[in-house]
Amino acid sequence: MNSFGDKWTFTSFGESHGAAIGGVLDGVPAGIVIDMDLIRRELERRAGKGVTGDGLQVTGVSPRALREPDEVEWLSGVMGDGLQVTGGKLVTLGTPIAFIIRNKDARPEDYEWLKTTYRVGHADKVYEQKYGIRDWRGGGRASARETAGRVVAGCVAKQQLAEKGITIHAELIQVGSETDPAKFNDTIASYQRDGDSIGGIIECRITGLQPGVGEPIFNKLQAELAFAVMSINACKGFEYGTGFGGVTQPGSAINAISGGISGGISDGTEVTFRCVFKPTPTTKKALAEIASASSYIVHGSFVHRSDACVATRAVPVVEAMTAIALIDLLS
Amino acid sequence: MNSFGDKWTFTSFGESHGAAIGGVLDGVPAGIVIDMDLIRRELERRAGKGVTGDGLQVTGVSPRALREPDEVEWLSGVMGDGLQVTGGKLVTLGTPIAFIIRNKDARPEDYEWLKTTYRVGHADKVYEQKYGIRDWRGGGRASARETAGRVVAGCVAKQQLAEKGITIHAELIQVGSETDPAKFNDTIASYQRDGDSIGGIIECRITGLQPGVGEPIFNKLQAELAFAVMSINACKGFEYGTGFGGVTQPGSAINAISGGISGGISDGTEVTFRCVFKPTPTTKKALAEIASASSYIVHGSFVHRSDACVATRAVPVVEAMTAIALIDLLS
Amino acid sequence: MNSFGDKWTFTSFGESHGAAIGGVLDGVPAGIVIDMDLIRRELERRAGKGVTGDGLQVTGVSPRALREPDEVEWLSGVMGDGLQVTGGKLVTLGTPIAFIIRNKDARPEDYEWLKTTYRVGHADKVYEQKYGIRDWRGGGRASARETAGRVVAGCVAKQQLAEKGITIHAELIQVGSETDPAKFNDTIASYQRDGDSIGGIIECRITGLQPGVGEPIFNKLQAELAFAVMSINACKGFEYGTGFGGVTQPGSAINAISGGISGGISDGTEVTFRCVFKPTPTTKKALAEIASASSYIVHGSFVHRSDACVATRAVPVVEAMTAIALIDLLS
Amino acid sequence: MNSFGDKWTFTSFGESHGAAIGGVLDGVPAGIVIDMDLIRRELERRAGKGVTGDGLQVTGVSPRALREPDEVEWLSGVMGDGLQVTGGKLVTLGTPIAFIIRNKDARPEDYEWLKTTYRVGHADKVYEQKYGIRDWRGGGRASARETAGRVVAGCVAKQQLAEKGITIHAELIQVGSETDPAKFNDTIASYQRDGDSIGGIIECRITGLQPGVGEPIFNKLQAELAFAVMSINACKGFEYGTGFGGVTQPGSAINAISGGISGGISDGTEVTFRCVFKPTPTTKKALAEIASASSYIVHGSFVHRSDACVATRAVPVVEAMTAIALIDLLS
Repeated sequence: MNSFGDKWTFTSFGESHGAAIGGVLDGVPAGIVIDMDLIRRELERRAGKGVTGDGLQVTGVSPRALREPDEVEWLSGVMGDGLQVTGGKLVTLGTPIAFIIRNKDARPEDYEWLKTTYRVGHADKVYEQKYGIRDWRGGGRASARETAGRVVAGCVAKQQLAEKGITIHAELIQVGSETDPAKFNDTIASYQRDGDSIGGIIECRITGLQPGVGEPIFNKLQAELAFAVMSINACKGFEYGTGFGGVTQPGSAINAISGGISGGISDGTEVTFRCVFKPTPTTKKALAEIASASSYIVHGSFVHRSDACVATRAVPVVEAMTAIALIDLLS
Repeated sequence: MNSFGDKWTFTSFGESHGAAIGGVLDGVPAGIVIDMDLIRRELERRAGKGVTGDGLQVTGVSPRALREPDEVEWLSGVMGDGLQVTGGKLVTLGTPIAFIIRNKDARPEDYEWLKTTYRVGHADKVYEQKYGIRDWRGGGRASARETAGRVVAGCVAKQQLAEKGITIHAELIQVGSETDPAKFNDTIASYQRDGDSIGGIIECRITGLQPGVGEPIFNKLQAELAFAVMSINACKGFEYGTGFGGVTQPGSAINAISGGISGGISDGTEVTFRCVFKPTPTTKKALAEIASASSYIVHGSFVHRSDACVATRAVPVVEAMTAIALIDLLS
Repeated sequence: MNSFGDKWTFTSFGESHGAAIGGVLDGVPAGIVIDMDLIRRELERRAGKGVTGDGLQVTGVSPRALREPDEVEWLSGVMGDGLQVTGGKLVTLGTPIAFIIRNKDARPEDYEWLKTTYRVGHADKVYEQKYGIRDWRGGGRASARETAGRVVAGCVAKQQLAEKGITIHAELIQVGSETDPAKFNDTIASYQRDGDSIGGIIECRITGLQPGVGEPIFNKLQAELAFAVMSINACKGFEYGTGFGGVTQPGSAINAISGGISGGISDGTEVTFRCVFKPTPTTKKALAEIASASSYIVHGSFVHRSDACVATRAVPVVEAMTAIALIDLLS
Repeated sequence: MNSFGDKWTFTSFGESHGAAIGGVLDGVPAGIVIDMDLIRRELERRAGKGVTGDGLQVTGVSPRALREPDEVEWLSGVMGDGLQVTGGKLVTLGTPIAFIIRNKDARPEDYEWLKTTYRVGHADKVYEQKYGIRDWRGGGRASARETAGRVVAGCVAKQQLAEKGITIHAELIQVGSETDPAKFNDTIASYQRDGDSIGGIIECRITGLQPGVGEPIFNKLQAELAFAVMSINACKGFEYGTGFGGVTQPGSAINAISGGISGGISDGTEVTFRCVFKPTPTTKKALAEIASASSYIVHGSFVHRSDACVATRAVPVVEAMTAIALIDLLS
């Protein structure tokens, strides 16, 4: 339920405003030196703190994301140089790797009013329906803060993939109806000024993948990738190869376009897929407009802590989930 | 690898031109009377033999699909009235249900030339790369004939879902650029006359699903549905709720559209998703055009046994996989 | 529930007096030539038809076991020479291998009286409690007939293990209090004459297993072997290395005895374990004695079709489950 | 690999002399108040600090076990009263529960000499063979310190079981050849004085278990229990019902003894099983005697930190694993 993968598994835990979030990686081989720089860089990319891998300075980022230091504490599965048990150069032992990121900016008191309120477009109500109890502290487990753990796990996966010559690169290719990356920040800023938010499309390319990965029936490579990517908050669709756009084209025009996968199995060419992220629901405008018309919303003034375009920060998460799905198939 | 589900599992087996295809269902409770009529009807719908659930008389269907009688033989897990072990009214025992459909129209000799050839847009080459051996008999395991087993499994799942008040209805909503169902057959026929093929989009709606189904992190309901549907041959994309089209709309306009799922969990409203199917690759035109330009294709004249629009026959398979995914989550 | 293994899985199906028993093997690599002789020999050994691998002519065997021809029909996952789909030399395709053994001597009518009766020492009552319905036809799924499928699966596993230089050999080392194999048949015959039954201990040795197999925490090699062997009907205990007998010995005397496993991981020496099988419950004497004293038993005169010492026929089943557990760990 | 269970899972992590050991529980329902007293009491029982549940004051306990405070830190999945995120009365949220126990008495420097040495009866060598690298710090992952996490997990499982009216009670019934509990401490002390160690047998009884738990084929209740218990360090055998001793008894005498399980399924009577634990290998006497005769041992003088009879401390671990296995089957 909170684990991903069969042979290389990532077990995720932690609430947004609890003590810590974190994870356990099981199936990582011994002898890998953890790339601390990669992890820090990817966590900053996810937090929207710096330039993205695509040279895009992100705007409209949630204030909390920027404030959280996101320091990773390693609890097991790694051993330092000499007698050190943590710190320094960490080498994997082949045993389960547990790590945590403490919630430094947890402010449960900010959310106390949520005890009696459900937010529109959020999972507040369904959580209570499912569990009979609700962690009202900033969305609790449903918060996208949980994706920081996925990014750490993804970095370890990426390191293993890199040793096999496999690289994963995702980038934002559309924001609203804008497809020119140079204009993405302006587009986002205009929605933000308007008290609104906007969605985006991310494209991900996998290079260096050998033929033969994926199973022919249920565990097709595209099904595994879709499962991994659709598990990211706010993702509303997945397509590969000719995708939805291909529906208007005859077979004669597109049959040679495989998207890197034939019959569920990688064919040795670049694998390409796209996924779409909806706008953040917690916006000034959206809440004000809907609140009056809907009994579902009890409270509509909650606006801080949200992103104007969550797709910008989803880019490293898409890479992470892709890496985790692939390394599991290759383990 | 050939099993789907955790608590309600469907294990699939069988090659297109081997002795039989079939499956084992594990986790079906005791006491369910198998609805033979439903199974026969859904198998005919998959074979393109009759009108679809949408009143659409399918055209351009593979000749073999029409010839195969698709008779289901029950081997275990069910007991007939009185002392009968097969036949009559079959009641489930709670033990694994094994069934087979013999390949009556298997013509492996028709495919002998494929021993030394790979077809474009088919999994012929990747299979050989993956397994080191290839079942050249009509695509072997990669053939869509395997989906007949999914339809049988889906019928059992649908019966269990119906008892819980849950119904699943899929229909073709687009063929090529045509969105008027009354014109679908003409559209398909025109591509067929042209020696070509065309794709389609299927929409599926789940009604009666209670709130609380799906897990908040990795096993989100949308991820489970995407995994199930993307495992169908020729499916190139999955979207739900606002989908890819929602990217151009601001959060204020679309935040109340959940597609029936919030935070990965069903919210009690109708669940709606769409999926796209690419055109069948084995067409006269496609093969003729590509064969000369590509060393990948050794042989380009293979045209019999293919569909002009495979999306028409995918409709009951989409329903079946949706039913299987749901009953597993509810078991 | 009816599947064993994670990467090399055996899904079992079939009731004792239904149409057929059988199984699906998933994870078997392509290119293995199925050893039909081995399978026939092991099935005969399980049926008590011939000499066991230990030169023991079995006595006191159930009449039905002797009458069933146990012919294996292969449905998928294998391809014959040339165009043959069954028969001849069968080679695995890498796809799931489905096989069935039809119940030729099924006599459900013999068990009709069981519809209203529970047998002592049998699972009749718990089945009904668990499923709310009962297959009264000779124990249905609880019958040891199901182990024939295990033996077929085990033969395929053994072939793969043999290619890795691993052999498995089990033998009966005790019947009642008798430990001289030459006297086992006489011992069994004496219990049989007395209308009674007796248990036995089987020892199994695995040779050629490389160091490093088994996981250090939960999936220790001994835990996996115990799980596999304890799943056989009538098995009441499992021990390895110093076992239960070692309790009276100080550490200084027995610490070098590993039983082939250290810390849950094979250490490269021969793995040795023992397991004990209880006597068949359905005996003349047992039923007559208990029936009058217990309300649990409604009917006590059912004696045909049972073995005087089921441990004799369990020997190849122990080998099969050991092989299946090992090949899964090595896949 | 480091996870146990399918629906109620316990993922274990941590090396004996790393930063911390711990675990993640997934599948625990919301609304359970964690019984801190039970956890502390059981951890002390495991550490050999106090009287056992059987009134036995344990002797011969490892010094480190006595020194470690074993304080549990809760990281996720629980929420305190009001705004507290840790401390006070903790209530489960239905989300994954992560906890850690920091290694306060970790002394990796004590083990530096082990870098070049393998200890007899330990997993030192096989670990290196399996992983190509070795955590020489006190056995690393192979250390029984890992069982502290099992005890915490087991306490949560026991709480859930208690709500269903199910209780688990294990006790030491034999030490060496002594079966009188009043004499166990003297027996252990005499072996300890002799620089030696001794094994023991634990009996475990499950009361209140409803009929119908366990699956009829592979996942028989006895197989699940054997798997759980055989995964505990130093456990060498498992038996239930008539066990190994029953081999000398005819069917007529023992067929009514089910051990609480019929056909793999609980029958509503008390479930009883026994398991045997071998003596601790790291004893003065054992090492001295064997070291000279075996090239396997490079170093034989390592004696501190070991138990004279590890079976005494295994009692709560047997209960914990039994509880975890049962709650998984009941979830």
